[in-house]
Amino acid sequence: MKDLQGIITVLITPFDKNDEVDYKGFESNIEWLISQGVHGLLTLGSTGEYASLTDEERYKVAEFVMKAAKGRVPVVVGTTCETQKRAIAFSKHAESIGAAGVMISPPPYCKPDMEQVYGYYKDINDAINIPIILYNNPWTTGVDVTEKTLIKIFDELKNVQYLKDSTGSVQRARDVKAYASSEVKLLCGWEDLAYENFVLGAQGWISVSSNVTPKLCIELFEKTYAAKDFSGGREVYDKLLPMLRYLENSGKLVQAVKSMSNMLGLAGGYMRGPRLPLSSDEESELKQILVNMGAISN
Amino acid sequence: MKDLQGIITVLITPFDKNDEVDYKGFESNIEWLISQGVHGLLTLGSTGEYASLTDEERYKVAEFVMKAAKGRVPVVVGTTCETQKRAIAFSKHAESIGAAGVMISPPPYCKPDMEQVYGYYKDINDAINIPIILYNNPWTTGVDVTEKTLIKIFDELKNVQYLKDSTGSVQRARDVKAYASSEVKLLCGWEDLAYENFVLGAQGWISVSSNVTPKLCIELFEKTYAAKDFSGGREVYDKLLPMLRYLENSGKLVQAVKSMSNMLGLAGGYMRGPRLPLSSDEESELKQILVNMGAISN
Amino acid sequence: MKDLQGIITVLITPFDKNDEVDYKGFESNIEWLISQGVHGLLTLGSTGEYASLTDEERYKVAEFVMKAAKGRVPVVVGTTCETQKRAIAFSKHAESIGAAGVMISPPPYCKPDMEQVYGYYKDINDAINIPIILYNNPWTTGVDVTEKTLIKIFDELKNVQYLKDSTGSVQRARDVKAYASSEVKLLCGWEDLAYENFVLGAQGWISVSSNVTPKLCIELFEKTYAAKDFSGGREVYDKLLPMLRYLENSGKLVQAVKSMSNMLGLAGGYMRGPRLPLSSDEESELKQILVNMGAISN
Amino acid sequence: MKDLQGIITVLITPFDKNDEVDYKGFESNIEWLISQGVHGLLTLGSTGEYASLTDEERYKVAEFVMKAAKGRVPVVVGTTCETQKRAIAFSKHAESIGAAGVMISPPPYCKPDMEQVYGYYKDINDAINIPIILYNNPWTTGVDVTEKTLIKIFDELKNVQYLKDSTGSVQRARDVKAYASSEVKLLCGWEDLAYENFVLGAQGWISVSSNVTPKLCIELFEKTYAAKDFSGGREVYDKLLPMLRYLENSGKLVQAVKSMSNMLGLAGGYMRGPRLPLSSDEESELKQILVNMGAISN
Repeated sequence: MKDLQGIITVLITPFDKNDEVDYKGFESNIEWLISQGVHGLLTLGSTGEYASLTDEERYKVAEFVMKAAKGRVPVVVGTTCETQKRAIAFSKHAESIGAAGVMISPPPYCKPDMEQVYGYYKDINDAINIPIILYNNPWTTGVDVTEKTLIKIFDELKNVQYLKDSTGSVQRARDVKAYASSEVKLLCGWEDLAYENFVLGAQGWISVSSNVTPKLCIELFEKTYAAKDFSGGREVYDKLLPMLRYLENSGKLVQAVKSMSNMLGLAGGYMRGPRLPLSSDEESELKQILVNMGAISN
Repeated sequence: MKDLQGIITVLITPFDKNDEVDYKGFESNIEWLISQGVHGLLTLGSTGEYASLTDEERYKVAEFVMKAAKGRVPVVVGTTCETQKRAIAFSKHAESIGAAGVMISPPPYCKPDMEQVYGYYKDINDAINIPIILYNNPWTTGVDVTEKTLIKIFDELKNVQYLKDSTGSVQRARDVKAYASSEVKLLCGWEDLAYENFVLGAQGWISVSSNVTPKLCIELFEKTYAAKDFSGGREVYDKLLPMLRYLENSGKLVQAVKSMSNMLGLAGGYMRGPRLPLSSDEESELKQILVNMGAISN
Repeated sequence: MKDLQGIITVLITPFDKNDEVDYKGFESNIEWLISQGVHGLLTLGSTGEYASLTDEERYKVAEFVMKAAKGRVPVVVGTTCETQKRAIAFSKHAESIGAAGVMISPPPYCKPDMEQVYGYYKDINDAINIPIILYNNPWTTGVDVTEKTLIKIFDELKNVQYLKDSTGSVQRARDVKAYASSEVKLLCGWEDLAYENFVLGAQGWISVSSNVTPKLCIELFEKTYAAKDFSGGREVYDKLLPMLRYLENSGKLVQAVKSMSNMLGLAGGYMRGPRLPLSSDEESELKQILVNMGAISN
Repeated sequence: MKDLQGIITVLITPFDKNDEVDYKGFESNIEWLISQGVHGLLTLGSTGEYASLTDEERYKVAEFVMKAAKGRVPVVVGTTCETQKRAIAFSKHAESIGAAGVMISPPPYCKPDMEQVYGYYKDINDAINIPIILYNNPWTTGVDVTEKTLIKIFDELKNVQYLKDSTGSVQRARDVKAYASSEVKLLCGWEDLAYENFVLGAQGWISVSSNVTPKLCIELFEKTYAAKDFSGGREVYDKLLPMLRYLENSGKLVQAVKSMSNMLGLAGGYMRGPRLPLSSDEESELKQILVNMGAISN
């Protein structure tokens, strides 16, 4: 299977007024993203509000996205669960429907120690035959997988091939890649560190912002990673940064990307509680950011 | 309805070798706890590994515990969910089967701000007619409900009547009780602050340790809270402290209480992954703690 | 030497308009505090802005306070320094002028590990012959002395006799006292945990608030610690709490106590930069707190 | 005055057996560093243990380093103090002896709010006529100067021209430079982010490691910043990284750089307490790092 690389959009899950998944809008978002050239899709990540869906919805959304993609781009499915038993069930399902891989963070509730983190990934690794993206997101899970444990996992578990780093700094991923014996493929997982990650060798970006500005995100990747044109890449990055900073710093990433989607005529749709719509001040700030980027006219 | 007070044991959920709920062992645990005199039972809390159960298991466990208690003590059901929609479904179910109340923490995944926390509790409050225990556990949910928001919730939402405080210090609960306009009933939610909470006016303790030492926990409550015999209460507390400290500081609360249950001949049962059994060193340390308390012989 | 116990006021250092120590005001503050009945004085603590004084000022202030006290109450001198060499120099000076003890936190700049913390206290311990109050204040020094290291220090270093706990919770001091082999005398170092500390066995309170409300602080001590009248003590505490909470939570403890001193006609004096005077809103809030306590009329 | 740029070595302060500054060794270190080509020297930073020196020592060391440099490279003096009054005195002295600038962090003890941080820098700015390096080091001072306050300081205070960033991540400095109206000159202040900082536009590195490996540090600067040869720079960086990571992560930066200096035949000298010498295991690890870099033979 070809490596995952480039801009992999971590899809929002649009809801309609009745709090149901809006599959029609979902499909048009996917069509548009593929037409814009994104290199892959990831469904049921944090941005996709996976933790707010029922199990049935998770299965259905995974199947839907796979079908909507029609094999044009690889699709990764987020299959994190509190127990590996259920993460395995979701992961086997993803494998069975043709997913290019699964993305899995440590269990978000129980704050496992490193031995338990290792056991969790080992059990999942042993149960499936597609690549695993290890998603280290200490802000969300309350667990920061250490360099030592990451290296052990990458060296010992053959399906764990990608590291999505959401620590908010660059050192962890950089050094795991440098010091593991086996290859560690890096995927950026922090919006306003995308350029830095590409400079340091990340081959892709699991990107929230590409839901709304796919072309700029792709340009950032192509210049910085593919062409090693670091100053050209920096210029693109500087255009993106106000939005990337908002996404990381507002505490309202999902709301912001849904709101911007709506501004752009995409299917952002409604929030599932407890998330509330943005205030009009927040909306104005985001609108101005999009105007300044030239993404919408004033 | 009578107030919840005293020792409310937050039940473990025992699993058998096949990772299924061991209802027979579960029932014998409940019988024993009621025979020992605990004042209430809480099922599907963190100690009950609610986040590791399927929805179906949560419904079934709630119904089972309610039935097993046979009305002898009040039963509270933990109904936390990532969305209020599902928390409401679980809470209505709990109400329908006769629960004395529900215990609900903020959604553990999405890190809501205080406005969203308020909205979450308001929606749940408006949907049910039994008391709500607001469970503030920043270590687990990544969200620390502020004094100001707690006061607003208690003053405005009539069903939110109890605060279970798991901040690890005593100030928050003490001051919410002091400065809210409406009555705030405090329930301790931090094992090695039980005595201090009783001294400060907590009327109950949602207690992990009472799974294994119910009589001592009850004695602590009766002396400290009921009889205001603070020095007598302190003596009991000093006996309990080594165990309480282990439970709070080891990072392995569930494993520890299950392991001690097994040592005592209760149904601790097996761990559901990613939790691993304690090491033999950890087991020895716990055993010594129980020996020193006189709970088991050497 | 008699034990330090009761209300030990951690004195402010009043400055005049020219940023010089106002010794006249300082003396009248001391006279007033002794007349009100405080049990001891501590100079050159954090509240005394020791870190903002020159070495010469520190020596002079220590001598001044000792003289002003005229032996009526014990005087403790804060002698924390970044190196034990200089801490020893200050401590020997304190001993030479008759101090009842010295109070010393870990060095506030270099973030020593526990081995270095131990070595620091050992060297100081070996150089003097008066009691040392170990002041654990992780918020200020960036170092939290662990239970294990505290117990080692108290068990091995004979002059380290008192623990002033400023961790913001009650467990550390409680458990060091319980599990050390030698006697550990506790002194509260967190304003809005004074009552709780007395209940748990602290024999004194190194108190900021007693600069302005010595009588209430003394009453709190006498009822709670001396008479074991916990409910009577709680009533006094409830009067004090709004002020104690302001002192701990505003981030402007020194400014607040100086401002309140001025409101009461004591010598609060001016701020030494970078501290700025309180805003008028902050002053109004403090004034209202004093009015509500009956300390001043509206 | 020419801009500060390139490798600015933050000098250690070597002590002899009697805990006195070893000026002879100090001078030979300086001679060697200048002979190796470092672009500037900074004395009395954290690495220089400024907080462990007396005022007299600080004045004397500043004068000594200035003299020893003989105008061959610019010398910056660290003049941080708890009060701006004393920071101004040190800064005026530095100016009077010909320093190219002063480096100043927020006061390390009193945890000022942003208004007080601004006032501190404003007062210092207004009192001198040489450039100020604002040193933001939240791990040491307990104060993280926000982006907003940094921008205000750089836009309003003309002498504050350089930002030394020691936050441990790259975003703060990057964005202050991007969003301030006036020019902000960046100097890296975190060893294992030197390459990333150069890529992002830092014109210099206030470098600890260049005490021992000046040539490699210079090569990293020249390739990455000066020649924009990012892949060539990365190769140099990969050689340096094991040492840089040790310096940032061991908690014993001063001890490590002094120990390595001694291994290289430079004047590392002795530790001033509470710092203790490294253990033999720690020494072996450092030695192996130097061997692997080819800095010493096995």
